[in-house]
Amino acid sequence: MKLYFSPLACSMATRIALYEADLPAEFVEVDPGTKLMRDGADFRLVYELGLVPVLQPDDGGDVLTENAAVLQYVADQRPEALLAPTDARRRADLHQWLCYIGTELHKGIFIPLLNPEAHEAVKSSARSKVASRLSWVAKRLEGRDYLLNEFSVADAYLFTVLNWATAADVDMTPWPAIGTYVARVSARKAVARALNEEAALYAAEVARHLAKT
Amino acid sequence: MKLYFSPLACSMATRIALYEADLPAEFVEVDPGTKLMRDGADFRLVYELGLVPVLQPDDGGDVLTENAAVLQYVADQRPEALLAPTDARRRADLHQWLCYIGTELHKGIFIPLLNPEAHEAVKSSARSKVASRLSWVAKRLEGRDYLLNEFSVADAYLFTVLNWATAADVDMTPWPAIGTYVARVSARKAVARALNEEAALYAAEVARHLAKT
Repeated sequence: MKLYFSPLACSMATRIALYEADLPAEFVEVDPGTKLMRDGADFRLVYELGLVPVLQPDDGGDVLTENAAVLQYVADQRPEALLAPTDARRRADLHQWLCYIGTELHKGIFIPLLNPEAHEAVKSSARSKVASRLSWVAKRLEGRDYLLNEFSVADAYLFTVLNWATAADVDMTPWPAIGTYVARVSARKAVARALNEEAALYAAEVARHLAKT
Repeated sequence: MKLYFSPLACSMATRIALYEADLPAEFVEVDPGTKLMRDGADFRLVYELGLVPVLQPDDGGDVLTENAAVLQYVADQRPEALLAPTDARRRADLHQWLCYIGTELHKGIFIPLLNPEAHEAVKSSARSKVASRLSWVAKRLEGRDYLLNEFSVADAYLFTVLNWATAADVDMTPWPAIGTYVARVSARKAVARALNEEAALYAAEVARHLAKT
């Protein structure tokens, strides 16, 4: 498999899933600003909308886009890693959480708060939803180690999104269950490895941008 | 099953899926403004965030939320209706489209454009994405009857979202493939029935609101 990613972007969830499942993959870095890959080629020739993650499966078929789809595809390549439940009702719970993280947290809160060009009204609208959306997550995590019974790709996605909290100036101290969860997930070997690698790549990306200005 | 819905909201996709699958269900109407059900009870006691659709499965277990999860759950209750592919690679395509419709179209474009209280900057940001996001859909539909090979729950969701275009002042004439698609989907018996019923319920909801002002 080949994963097109940007450092610390939502595509990090897929890197976590690949490491958790111990699946080999090639990682192709995309600059989120220029949409160019490190070799200078235009990522929009791979996916017209220029959004990561994009996964090129080994079967040579079409690329796969959208986090929830890519994550479940990776999970299903190594069922024994138990990254996605196979029981229908629990799979529905997985869909629910992937969808909630994608729409309510990622798109609803973090994208506007992380966009330096977003109008203050856009940010303010996003900020007004922080308390209800994070309370709901905290409630789910009370008395649980992970969103489902075991660590799943939904945790890989949630952890990746919550990792943006500082940059987005979202204070998570009102929800200690979330803080404990983030510590628990980041202690996993695959997660720590993914985060360390992407943090280093992110620092290098920022340095390249600064060198150009 | 019991479906909590608001007329013409994204929950209509689930009504379409239920009719397509010929599955019996009880429909409970939620006023999107007051969050009250028709009997006056507070819907937020069913789902704290007050978002439809919510599905109460017959197994008496927890309610299921989030469109992509609810739609796939309904599809899986009647596999012979073929509303969701079972082949893993095609299921990934379904995930991809459900996720794209949910994040890029529903949340990214229509929610801000349909919200009368949204700041002009919020609407303008949403409007700037209309062309690229709808072009991508139109490209997919060229030479195809549906998003996947057959009608699926992704079409139920896409049709429901595109049905908001007039209210959101989104002109779809630059993409004739989308217009043809909407006509094709709306000619399906289950879709026409769902749309007619919800349009009538929506008109009644508007009348009730007007009577109160």
